[in-house]
Amino acid sequence: MQTLHTVAEMQAEADRARCAGRRLALVPTMGALHEGHLALVREARQRVGPEGHVTVSVFVNPTQFAPGEDYERYPRTLDADRAALAELVSEDGAGGADAVFAPSAEEMYPFGLPPLTTVRVAEMGRYLCGASRPGHFEGVTSVVTKLFLACRPDVAVFGQKDAQQLAILRRMTRELGFGIEIVGHPIVREKDGLALSSRNRYLSPEERRQAVVLSRALFAAGHAAGQGERSADALRQLMREQIALAPLAEVDYVEVVDADSLAPVETLEKEGPSGGRYLAALAVRFGGTRLIDNTTLRVA
Amino acid sequence: MQTLHTVAEMQAEADRARCAGRRLALVPTMGALHEGHLALVREARQRVGPEGHVTVSVFVNPTQFAPGEDYERYPRTLDADRAALAELVSEDGAGGADAVFAPSAEEMYPFGLPPLTTVRVAEMGRYLCGASRPGHFEGVTSVVTKLFLACRPDVAVFGQKDAQQLAILRRMTRELGFGIEIVGHPIVREKDGLALSSRNRYLSPEERRQAVVLSRALFAAGHAAGQGERSADALRQLMREQIALAPLAEVDYVEVVDADSLAPVETLEKEGPSGGRYLAALAVRFGGTRLIDNTTLRVA
Repeated sequence: MQTLHTVAEMQAEADRARCAGRRLALVPTMGALHEGHLALVREARQRVGPEGHVTVSVFVNPTQFAPGEDYERYPRTLDADRAALAELVSEDGAGGADAVFAPSAEEMYPFGLPPLTTVRVAEMGRYLCGASRPGHFEGVTSVVTKLFLACRPDVAVFGQKDAQQLAILRRMTRELGFGIEIVGHPIVREKDGLALSSRNRYLSPEERRQAVVLSRALFAAGHAAGQGERSADALRQLMREQIALAPLAEVDYVEVVDADSLAPVETLEKEGPSGGRYLAALAVRFGGTRLIDNTTLRVA
Repeated sequence: MQTLHTVAEMQAEADRARCAGRRLALVPTMGALHEGHLALVREARQRVGPEGHVTVSVFVNPTQFAPGEDYERYPRTLDADRAALAELVSEDGAGGADAVFAPSAEEMYPFGLPPLTTVRVAEMGRYLCGASRPGHFEGVTSVVTKLFLACRPDVAVFGQKDAQQLAILRRMTRELGFGIEIVGHPIVREKDGLALSSRNRYLSPEERRQAVVLSRALFAAGHAAGQGERSADALRQLMREQIALAPLAEVDYVEVVDADSLAPVETLEKEGPSGGRYLAALAVRFGGTRLIDNTTLRVA
């Protein structure tokens, strides 16, 4: 497993692999890899097969952090990340990652910050996390464009935990015509239901205990929708009640939105624009730590 | 020479060529090919060599026309364009184009218009043509991104006539990390100095006669700068006086700007941000037809 630090090296590596007949997969990460990321790498390997080529990018992208967010303190653990990926190779006969792409900020932003050139998906960034993280999704779509251009994959695997990011990147990828298949991997959870996140390490023991209310709220909404609840407001209320059980929890948003457009809805309908697929999504703060989680609701 | 109509076909063709060891060049056009375009195709061929692969894209991009501009009446002459390119093959031993990429608007904008996803270069689109063509350069950078993703070239050749477009695309290409070399080809002119343009065909005979003032104004500015004139305002005034000699000419802008940032300047300096390179640029209307032209000024 090699580590590449420049865009030009990565492009040359990708072209070599493609012209050797290998399918290429990319797993974009900000590092601080946990089991959720490793599940994405396994998924990537499955998609391209044992002869395929899997790249894991590790880049803490400054432009997707709003002022006052945790860009400076976001964990940077490249050696541990490399070790975790190397271990994946030995435990899995098919191999883990072939390459780690770990560029510097100077390599990714050769003209400095902020860049003049940006990629934007209108509308879809207004809802959910977009409301409280100004510029976040423009940072994401711009850096993922750069990562796609550097790594030139056939398939890219993202976690469903960042559901809004995934929906926006699906749209961007199809609309610009990258020719890249976007795969969303199910959320990986702790035993008590908490979604894995690099930010969970910021939680105090008491915050960590109470953080279970996120997934419980979503499971409750999923259960109610399964039982026939069609009112989005009733589902939102149900989730808010669950979260209120945690005294340290401060709600950022609790939403039910259309799964593709991400626009808030009033009623869950089988004949909705996304074919009866909706997203229950929430963001909750514990002290200085902001956690997100979501689940898909299907009206059959 | 084959004609491809879908992004997927074009990507497959590009990958085959690359993996056969061929270097790829792209000449993006809106069709209505004239000698200026054919010069770009010859330049592209020179850049990739006789064994290389040259694609000419032909796409009249709706999103770069502002409301009220000539999108509907812009000439569409694909058969004649193909014939001109085919002729180029026989007259030039090294060959003309290998492929014409001529997608439909539905193929390029699969979700309809306007697209949610756009690529933008800030600042540089404010000046010159950007002021009178709102949204034009965002349309250009977005569609060129799509064309780059479809055609996957190593080199792309653009005409220097659209100098602002060229500067913006250079910035975009380097800043997003496409790994594509951007080549600017010198302006091709009629004998009397008029820059070739697909829009020249809109001119009445009298307008066509008077249109010579554009290049004369630029040559005058170039001459004055060569003689040591360092005041940008003096050069602007000189150009305006030349254009005023044509009674049918209506000035849109007459500018002297930094060659890279495109910001207007006051004084031409050897130690300027672009190393003493400036652009004298103008846009002039004759009736409903808007013509542009420019020349590079170098302070040695």
